[in-house]
Amino acid sequence: MREALAEARLARGWTHPNPAVGSVIVHQGQVVARGRTQPPPGRHAEKEAIARWQELGAPLDDSTTLVVTLEPCCTHGRTPPCTEAILASGIRRVIVGSVDPNPVHAGRAFPQLREAGVEVIEGVLAEACDDLNLVFNHWIQTGDPLIALKVAVTLDGKTATRTGDSKWITGTEARADVHRWRHYFPAIGTGAGTLLQDNPQLTARLPEGAHAHPRFIFDRSLRGLGPGSSELQVFSDEWADLTITVTGQNQREKIERWSGHVEHTEHLTDEVRLLSTRGRTFWLVHGVGRAFWRHFRQALLVKGITGLYLETGSGLAQDLWLHRAVDYLFVYQAPKLVLDADAPTPFRGLPAGRMADALQLRQLHVERFGPDTLYRGWVRAV
Amino acid sequence: MREALAEARLARGWTHPNPAVGSVIVHQGQVVARGRTQPPPGRHAEKEAIARWQELGAPLDDSTTLVVTLEPCCTHGRTPPCTEAILASGIRRVIVGSVDPNPVHAGRAFPQLREAGVEVIEGVLAEACDDLNLVFNHWIQTGDPLIALKVAVTLDGKTATRTGDSKWITGTEARADVHRWRHYFPAIGTGAGTLLQDNPQLTARLPEGAHAHPRFIFDRSLRGLGPGSSELQVFSDEWADLTITVTGQNQREKIERWSGHVEHTEHLTDEVRLLSTRGRTFWLVHGVGRAFWRHFRQALLVKGITGLYLETGSGLAQDLWLHRAVDYLFVYQAPKLVLDADAPTPFRGLPAGRMADALQLRQLHVERFGPDTLYRGWVRAV
Repeated sequence: MREALAEARLARGWTHPNPAVGSVIVHQGQVVARGRTQPPPGRHAEKEAIARWQELGAPLDDSTTLVVTLEPCCTHGRTPPCTEAILASGIRRVIVGSVDPNPVHAGRAFPQLREAGVEVIEGVLAEACDDLNLVFNHWIQTGDPLIALKVAVTLDGKTATRTGDSKWITGTEARADVHRWRHYFPAIGTGAGTLLQDNPQLTARLPEGAHAHPRFIFDRSLRGLGPGSSELQVFSDEWADLTITVTGQNQREKIERWSGHVEHTEHLTDEVRLLSTRGRTFWLVHGVGRAFWRHFRQALLVKGITGLYLETGSGLAQDLWLHRAVDYLFVYQAPKLVLDADAPTPFRGLPAGRMADALQLRQLHVERFGPDTLYRGWVRAV
Repeated sequence: MREALAEARLARGWTHPNPAVGSVIVHQGQVVARGRTQPPPGRHAEKEAIARWQELGAPLDDSTTLVVTLEPCCTHGRTPPCTEAILASGIRRVIVGSVDPNPVHAGRAFPQLREAGVEVIEGVLAEACDDLNLVFNHWIQTGDPLIALKVAVTLDGKTATRTGDSKWITGTEARADVHRWRHYFPAIGTGAGTLLQDNPQLTARLPEGAHAHPRFIFDRSLRGLGPGSSELQVFSDEWADLTITVTGQNQREKIERWSGHVEHTEHLTDEVRLLSTRGRTFWLVHGVGRAFWRHFRQALLVKGITGLYLETGSGLAQDLWLHRAVDYLFVYQAPKLVLDADAPTPFRGLPAGRMADALQLRQLHVERFGPDTLYRGWVRAV
């Protein structure tokens, strides 16, 4: 299963909206074939592994076992179900990690396989297998995109000194991990304050190269239209057409003044209108507070975006907490102290009255990156 | 060495002002004798181990090895040096963890032993061996007592909600670790705010029983003399005579009014006077700010107290940071969020101008206790 998990990790970030799955086929104690989910509309992991194994001549005896991180699909969708491919392969032993998180399908593959004489062992390293697909699992279970907030703070919860200096809080290992998560999530976002202060790239820079997802800039008062803003990296680099400014519907006139004319406009939903002009894309969202976030989530789904990784300073974060818009939290914490009550923090906006009411992260993961620690977990129950 | 470290840990807290040391004698691959530092004026660890080994008939061959967490003493003090006891034992192989932190003696035992034909291997698990004796090492190297600040905070650095509720931040495992450190330090302290809010016991409650060290209450305006204060645990339990209220010299008159008459007074130093009356002990410290803390440290040394473990809320902590009075920091952090800029924090008072100037913990240790994490390290260079 560890080999299958490693395969699945290689697929992460390339398979949305599908889950990242890994599979291996073991014969006489050796891994003889590997497969992972292909980018849509590609093959599922277990079909990939079976194809590789058949290229080898399909070595088959009682030891031959298919290992897969996620329950095989058992219903006819775009492609014939993987359970049929397994039965056709002749392999009679299957080890599965996660149960299908889709409540309609969950566990339905197991009796199909068992009735056909296949031995099925389920739930092996299930927690690690579930953790591979935070975004998919949340979306398939709630119908909602996953909005994750990532912050990098000191031990005293500060994102910068009072002068705004924030470079760097965490070390190189933690920052490399952030790029893995940027790669994994279908979209990245930040607020106008961070945009103007840090001029971020909002790309995933992995050892094998950089790339970008849709990049959302939350900019209520369109500070990103100011003089010199076209020099900002997200508006000028090779992925500038992936940058989307999210603002209120009351900002339409300001955009029109800035652009002279609006080239293209479409309704994403009844509540969200898309405008493009002068090389920029805007989403105009109706409503404020919780309604704003609800409408924005609906528009994400219209565009097939099932998850958003938000990296932001104190202003946007406060709005997210206040309106309970955060599903999942990443806190990278460095063992240093700013010792200043007036330095900015992303942790404000939803005061707990009693310590027992403090927000607890669920399914907490704690990971060390050099001197720094990552705490991540669910803010809202899935 | 791991066996010797385990012996040393059993001695921690009982040996001040001496370091806690552990020693084992290994013969033919087996630990045949163990020893640890006895409370003053008891024997050193290696002499204890040699005595136990001699009770067994002193089994000796080329495999016989003495393992000790700290360089043996080599000068005549209260007792003959341990190096002589080792040479007299006939053991010809010694493995040592830490070098003697006293700069006058550091490393001097090794040539003495080697010249007499003993094989010496030094520096084995030296970091863990050094870590056993934070208080002794700091005192012997700087001539100063070690003042440690311990805080229990949420991920956003809060010690309570805005209503003052703080029970509980961390879980049972973290709180058990706090009792181990309370036991280890020669003295415990807190501020008057915590005293009145939480009515703490300030005792070390270990699985094998509870006990108390000197307990310091920092109480500038003598709030601890108020009505009902005699019911507070530190003033009424079986260790009440170990409780010391620390205040300014300008508070003498208030104490006299409260008590009617002062029973006993003595000069601890030119700057610190001790008063006892009505079952309470007061230290009246001259000066404010850095001078206050310097004078208080001198008085600690007069009383033979080489370290103080301060557990405190935001008020005293701010004073400690402002006057750079903290040597070592313990931060127990729970994965929960108060999300309130107005909730109290112990992290204020010495604002960093740039992130590069943020206070970094040196020789950082990160330990997990259930869901919580302990970060501990030096605030000031040793």
